[in-house]
Amino acid sequence: MTAPMAITMGDASGVGPEIVLRCASGGRLDPDVVIYGDRAILERGADLLGLDVPMTFVDDPTDPGDGLRVVDLGLLGAADHTPGVLSVAAGAAARAYVLRAVDDARAGRVAGVVTMPMSKEATQRSDPSFVGHTELIAERCGTPHVTMMLTNGDVAVTHVSTHCSMREAIERVRAPRVLEVIRLTDATLRRFLPAPRVAVCGLNPHAGEHGLFGTEDAEHIAPAVAAARAEGIDATGPHPADTVFFQAVRRQRYDAVVCMYHDQGHGPMKLLAFEEGVNVTVGLPIVRTSVDHGTAFDIAWQGVAFIGSLPHALDYAWRLAGRP
Amino acid sequence: MTAPMAITMGDASGVGPEIVLRCASGGRLDPDVVIYGDRAILERGADLLGLDVPMTFVDDPTDPGDGLRVVDLGLLGAADHTPGVLSVAAGAAARAYVLRAVDDARAGRVAGVVTMPMSKEATQRSDPSFVGHTELIAERCGTPHVTMMLTNGDVAVTHVSTHCSMREAIERVRAPRVLEVIRLTDATLRRFLPAPRVAVCGLNPHAGEHGLFGTEDAEHIAPAVAAARAEGIDATGPHPADTVFFQAVRRQRYDAVVCMYHDQGHGPMKLLAFEEGVNVTVGLPIVRTSVDHGTAFDIAWQGVAFIGSLPHALDYAWRLAGRP
Repeated sequence: MTAPMAITMGDASGVGPEIVLRCASGGRLDPDVVIYGDRAILERGADLLGLDVPMTFVDDPTDPGDGLRVVDLGLLGAADHTPGVLSVAAGAAARAYVLRAVDDARAGRVAGVVTMPMSKEATQRSDPSFVGHTELIAERCGTPHVTMMLTNGDVAVTHVSTHCSMREAIERVRAPRVLEVIRLTDATLRRFLPAPRVAVCGLNPHAGEHGLFGTEDAEHIAPAVAAARAEGIDATGPHPADTVFFQAVRRQRYDAVVCMYHDQGHGPMKLLAFEEGVNVTVGLPIVRTSVDHGTAFDIAWQGVAFIGSLPHALDYAWRLAGRP
Repeated sequence: MTAPMAITMGDASGVGPEIVLRCASGGRLDPDVVIYGDRAILERGADLLGLDVPMTFVDDPTDPGDGLRVVDLGLLGAADHTPGVLSVAAGAAARAYVLRAVDDARAGRVAGVVTMPMSKEATQRSDPSFVGHTELIAERCGTPHVTMMLTNGDVAVTHVSTHCSMREAIERVRAPRVLEVIRLTDATLRRFLPAPRVAVCGLNPHAGEHGLFGTEDAEHIAPAVAAARAEGIDATGPHPADTVFFQAVRRQRYDAVVCMYHDQGHGPMKLLAFEEGVNVTVGLPIVRTSVDHGTAFDIAWQGVAFIGSLPHALDYAWRLAGRP
C-alpha cells in the first residue's frame, strides 16, 4: 500500500482518543489512516463509549489490516486510563506517539502526521524540557524556523508573530521576517496550488493610509512584498486588514493572508471556523496538521466533544501530501 | 403625524441620491421617512435612472404628502448634477442637508438622521474647516466626545481608538477611555435593550494570558470593566479578541464588543457585513446612523451601486429611536 496518514491519538486523559474512536465509528476516517497510540486505552475507551470499532494492531504503519489500524506503542495499560484527570504516564505516552509518527513520516512510512491534543502540563511532568507540541516536532525534525498556519480549508492565515504582546508584535514587523513568512506560506500552498495568491496585511489601520497612521506598512511590509514578487511569488499588499478577509473569503480573491500579529488573523478565522479550523505547521520537512482545540479534560470521554475538526485536519493533511 | 426619520441624500455627484431613489422605487423605504436634499437633483436623477418615484416637496418634515416626501433645500439646479465629478456646489449642499436635518432632530421634528455619503474633498473646497461628516454633526450638537459604532444589526462593535497607528492605539488603552467607551456602548444599546451584554476585548493575544503577553489587559482594561460593573453595566472581560466574536455572533452571548483598536473590530465585522454594515455615532444627543460606504464617484448614477446598506441603516435608526 502507499503510505497512510498518521493520526497521533493525543493525551489519553483528554478528548483525543475519544474523538478518534467516534470518528472511526461514524465512518469519518478514510481507510488509509493509521493511529499511533495505545491499544489498552482505545479498547477500554470504545467499551466506555459503547462503540464497536474493529481494530487491527500493527507493528509497521504500512502493514495491512481490517478496521482501524493502530500502531500500538504499548506504553499504557487500562489502569492508566483516567478520563479527565491529568496523568504523568499519559503525558509521557502522548509525547512518544508523536515522536514515533514523526520519525515514520521522515522515513516516508507515513504520508504525514495529524496530531490530536497533548496536555502541556502532563507532558512537562515527565519531560521538563517540553515547551509545546509544535516545538517538539520542530526539534525532532531539526527545523527550528517553523510557523503556524490556521485554515478553514479555503483560506489559510499565517502570522509574523503570535504569542507575544502587541508592543513586541510591532517590533517584529521587519522585512526579513515578513518575507520569511510570505515564502513559507507560498511554499506550503504550492503543495496543492500552482500559484497561490498571497495577500499580505498591513500593521496599521488602512495599512497606514500613506503614513497617516504609522510607518511600518511602507517601511517594512511593502519592501517584503516587493522582494517576494521579485522571487515569483504572487504576493500583494500591504492590504488594509479590515477588508482583506472579506476579499479572501467571500470574493475568493486570495488563497492565503499573511498577518502581522495573532488576533489579526485569528479574529476573522475563528469567527469563520471556530470548531472546524485546522492548524498546519509550516516550515517542517513533513506534513503536519492538527485540530484547533485542546485536551478539554472537563468534557473528555463523555461522548459530547465536538468531533468535526479531525476530519478537516485529515483532509487538509492529505491535500498537503498531494492526494487529490 | 409622529416625527419621521430624516435621510440626508448626500453628495449629488455620488451614489447617495441614486441609492435613495432606487430604494424608494423598490419599496425599500418605509413611508415615515423624509429626504433632505435638492428637488432638481432627485427629479433629474429619477429621469436618468428611468425610475418613476412620486415625490412631494414639503417645507416641514412633518407635513403630510404622498410618495417620497422631500425637504427641498433648493440649493442645486439640474445644471449642478454632475454624476461622478467632484462639484464644489454639491459638496456645500451636502453639508447644508446635514445641518438642517440635525437641527430638525434636535428640535424633535424628526426622530433621527440617516446620512448618505458626503465627499470630504468636495465639501472642504467650500468650507476649509470641514474635517468629516461625523465631526460636523458632533460640532452642531455641541458634543465633542463621540465615537463610532459599527453593527451588522445583531452585534455592535465600538472602539477605544480608530484612526491612529497601532503604536498610538496601545497608548490610548487607558482605564478612563475604556470606561468611557463601555458607557457610551451601553447607553446606546439601552435605547432598545434593557440590559445590553457588553464584552470588552483585551489588547494582547489571549487578553495577555496572565501577563505573559503584555500588561495592558490587567492594568488598564480589567479596572475599567470592574468600574463599569460597579455602575450596573453588564460588562465582562477583558476577553481574548480572537474568540469573543464567535461567542457574540454565533453563540449570541453578547450584544456589543468593545474593541481596543480599529482592526480588532473592523476585521471580524466587515467579514460578516461588508456591504450591509451600519455605522452609528454614539454620544450624540440625537440618533444618527449612516451607511458603511463612501460616495463611490466611480460608479455613481449608473444604476449599479449596492443599495442594501440604506435599509439597514434606516432600520437601525428606528430601533435606536425606540420604534419596535
